[in-house]
Amino acid sequence: MKELIKKIKDQIQLSIEAEEYFISISKEKAVPKGTILIRQGQIVNKIFFVKGGCLRSYCIDKSGKEHTLQFAIKNWWISDYIAIYSNDAATLTVECLKDSSIIEFSSKDLDKMFTRFPEFEAFQRGNLKRHIVSLQRRILNQLQLSATERYDLFLEQYGDIEQYAANYHIASYLGITQQSLSRIRVEKAKK
Amino acid sequence: MKELIKKIKDQIQLSIEAEEYFISISKEKAVPKGTILIRQGQIVNKIFFVKGGCLRSYCIDKSGKEHTLQFAIKNWWISDYIAIYSNDAATLTVECLKDSSIIEFSSKDLDKMFTRFPEFEAFQRGNLKRHIVSLQRRILNQLQLSATERYDLFLEQYGDIEQYAANYHIASYLGITQQSLSRIRVEKAKK
Repeated sequence: MKELIKKIKDQIQLSIEAEEYFISISKEKAVPKGTILIRQGQIVNKIFFVKGGCLRSYCIDKSGKEHTLQFAIKNWWISDYIAIYSNDAATLTVECLKDSSIIEFSSKDLDKMFTRFPEFEAFQRGNLKRHIVSLQRRILNQLQLSATERYDLFLEQYGDIEQYAANYHIASYLGITQQSLSRIRVEKAKK
Repeated sequence: MKELIKKIKDQIQLSIEAEEYFISISKEKAVPKGTILIRQGQIVNKIFFVKGGCLRSYCIDKSGKEHTLQFAIKNWWISDYIAIYSNDAATLTVECLKDSSIIEFSSKDLDKMFTRFPEFEAFQRGNLKRHIVSLQRRILNQLQLSATERYDLFLEQYGDIEQYAANYHIASYLGITQQSLSRIRVEKAKK
């Protein structure tokens, strides 16, 4: 929790009251590999900050195939924002890919926080902007880069993720088949 | 301008001072078809609100091919957010697809506005959240829907856009070739 508070204080001035409120609405948790934090179809009211480990959000299409929207590693936030912001049931599932430590927040508590302590707004504006930039970059990469170039960028961004993410997690994030992913790896190993 | 002010007031309480400041930093403009508002490689310091018409943002890859990131129709905001939020030169070009009326803001004036009138924060938080939802939906659609399904959704969202957007604008938004787009149209016409 200290690290997250420090990250916030690096960006905004935080009153003692605001800091105390923020701590009071946070729940630190150790979540073992395989834990499902949000399940497709259910009501969503939680947002998670990843202190360590890795969570993954994905949807399942009509044919039962999984499509990975996001991997969240250290210092990332994750939830089903489509459900929360649209007030709908979850279209995503959020699972724990390896033993992780997270900080859980209720989305309603966070909303109340912005009303009671508007000083958090500038911090949140920064988070949301960074999120938009990362989503726009992903769309542009998907449109203009080859699968191999996208895979290289993915490894730059996610470091040792291949040690705990399955092939179909990564392939379904890159929008390619598992066969294509294997072929790309073989070609890279040859170089 | 009145319509935009009304949209803001539907979501937040606005003081007279804040409204006056907002109007003072806005520039209403009529921009003819073909106008380039932001050019790849240049410094970006403007954000546009579309009152009517249509703007398009796109990047050009190494081989000279265009990839469409966004179409902005009535009531949408558009800029090169990657450049503004990362403080980089533009990676996108923003052009006018048909005669449009826009409201132009300097990104620095908007930043100052949040400091002077924090009441705008909740409105902006809503805008940024909606932007994130639409980008996440687009990524999930790209991963799990067929080209025909994506094209159908596109037409639902953008109405009469085919009357003024070129085939390669639409194909490069959907991430398909122009040949595929023509084939999909022929198949739909048969039904």
